[in-house]
Amino acid sequence: MKNFMDKLIEAIEEKENPTVMGLDPNLDFIPEPIVTDVLARIEDPQERAAEMIFRFNQGLLEAVHGIIPAVKPQLAYYEMYGAPGVAAFAKTCNLAKAMGFLVIADGKRNDIGQTASAYAAGYLGDITYPCGKTVRSYAVDALTVNPYLGRDGIMPFLETGKPHQRGVFALVRTSNPSATEIQDQRLIGGRTVYEAVADLLDTWGADYIGDYGYSALGAVVGATWPEEAGKLRQAHPHLFFLVPGYGAQGGNAASVKPNFDKNGRGAIINASRSLIAAWKKEGGNGKDYQEATLREARLMRDQLRQALVKGI
Amino acid sequence: MKNFMDKLIEAIEEKENPTVMGLDPNLDFIPEPIVTDVLARIEDPQERAAEMIFRFNQGLLEAVHGIIPAVKPQLAYYEMYGAPGVAAFAKTCNLAKAMGFLVIADGKRNDIGQTASAYAAGYLGDITYPCGKTVRSYAVDALTVNPYLGRDGIMPFLETGKPHQRGVFALVRTSNPSATEIQDQRLIGGRTVYEAVADLLDTWGADYIGDYGYSALGAVVGATWPEEAGKLRQAHPHLFFLVPGYGAQGGNAASVKPNFDKNGRGAIINASRSLIAAWKKEGGNGKDYQEATLREARLMRDQLRQALVKGI
Repeated sequence: MKNFMDKLIEAIEEKENPTVMGLDPNLDFIPEPIVTDVLARIEDPQERAAEMIFRFNQGLLEAVHGIIPAVKPQLAYYEMYGAPGVAAFAKTCNLAKAMGFLVIADGKRNDIGQTASAYAAGYLGDITYPCGKTVRSYAVDALTVNPYLGRDGIMPFLETGKPHQRGVFALVRTSNPSATEIQDQRLIGGRTVYEAVADLLDTWGADYIGDYGYSALGAVVGATWPEEAGKLRQAHPHLFFLVPGYGAQGGNAASVKPNFDKNGRGAIINASRSLIAAWKKEGGNGKDYQEATLREARLMRDQLRQALVKGI
Repeated sequence: MKNFMDKLIEAIEEKENPTVMGLDPNLDFIPEPIVTDVLARIEDPQERAAEMIFRFNQGLLEAVHGIIPAVKPQLAYYEMYGAPGVAAFAKTCNLAKAMGFLVIADGKRNDIGQTASAYAAGYLGDITYPCGKTVRSYAVDALTVNPYLGRDGIMPFLETGKPHQRGVFALVRTSNPSATEIQDQRLIGGRTVYEAVADLLDTWGADYIGDYGYSALGAVVGATWPEEAGKLRQAHPHLFFLVPGYGAQGGNAASVKPNFDKNGRGAIINASRSLIAAWKKEGGNGKDYQEATLREARLMRDQLRQALVKGI
């Protein structure tokens, strides 16, 4: 049965581009013309931030439409501005879906039992209300989760997402320096904690394998650890990798190559700042931010294509 | 310098009650009179859910005011209903603060760098907007976090919270059955993963110790594992424990006793369903839900007092 990863693989192959654009709208990245316009029209600070973020995202989505297959809004940058910020997140997801992007919500959510099911219903399900109406809260195709709680924190997401072909990415090996503190601790028997987590993901996701052989439960594997990524790729042919850390965090086309399988599949590379704040490198007030983002998106795509000798 | 745990300890001692009430407003728990009234007044399904939740919470807060020192809203049950749900969360926090409760947001958030700082600003800080106004997004005193990413995912919360005497609880040993899958894995050297996490918490929180000897970085330790809790209590005198799993999940006054230090301090016990859905055990339409919750809250308080031979 077709699952989320099948849809993701087909979207990547259609664009010949395994890039996902991170929508992490730090207010410092918003071009001045948007800031000026919104300040003149809206009073409430949270509503202002929310409108700036949505306008900025709208321009980014238009800029890379046809080039990039998926976007990854980072929930922190929306919920920090209260309910108006969350409304901007929901509007961004709706627009991205309507434009044909796949949407991966980066929330790293984690909880158990009914609470995990509540998160799952919100992000990957449809909610039927007491009045009988069914409403989707956020137009999201996949959600990142944290595996520390074990299968109780994962299965509700997989079960809720399955009938809608929605997916899940669980943290395995993150891109940050202190990822080593817990994830690289070595267990009796020789595996590291993150290797044990990857093994658990295989088990939890075994009943959710799609047409291309990848489970609806994928793994987050940072772009800054090519050696670890290569070993994980070999050991886990059913885990699709979401790879953050490209660009601003130091990952590049060469360092992410080991995340891909021999067919050039199995991974999607996230870039946030290097794409959405591209205009800041060029100076100016950001009025041409769409062109700057498109230029960077094409450059990243071409570098990834070049690095992947075989496939796509 | 006084920190969040000092405030929490003093609030507990004033009420002589180490209970935190979990505000996990599953719609099934909402009394029928509230449901009927809201259905008659509001059309939009998300706005309806949000209003039911807020009205329910308002009644719960009134019921236990003067008895229970702190509340722990679980974010999943609010954000699942979109921006209106998040608005109900924000209103609940505001009301709880105004009534004198300490508010622990249960979000289990986790991320790194600027993203962790964005979460921290939203939940534990004040945000200064481009217009110069400073606004607090959520009136929260502490936030739960997930430690899997290491110190990069923890320090931004501690730093942001410190000037406001706001705190953090990191997951150590959760209350669910599959907590064993990752947390109980044994590392080379003999410690389990959760014991190693508790050791890291000591290090990360060392510069945030308050007047009573507890760090602003506390630990989540499930009520269903008394033996593990007792060992953790001995080994980590500076970690204050947030203890979920009382009541519906099987924890009781005897099983949580090992979480407390010899002065009867060092832990606060969360109960959600057993308090907020108390009326459902008694049948009826829930019109007397406040009395049922108050009865359960007093019973839990008295059982905890009795179990704690020394101190409070």
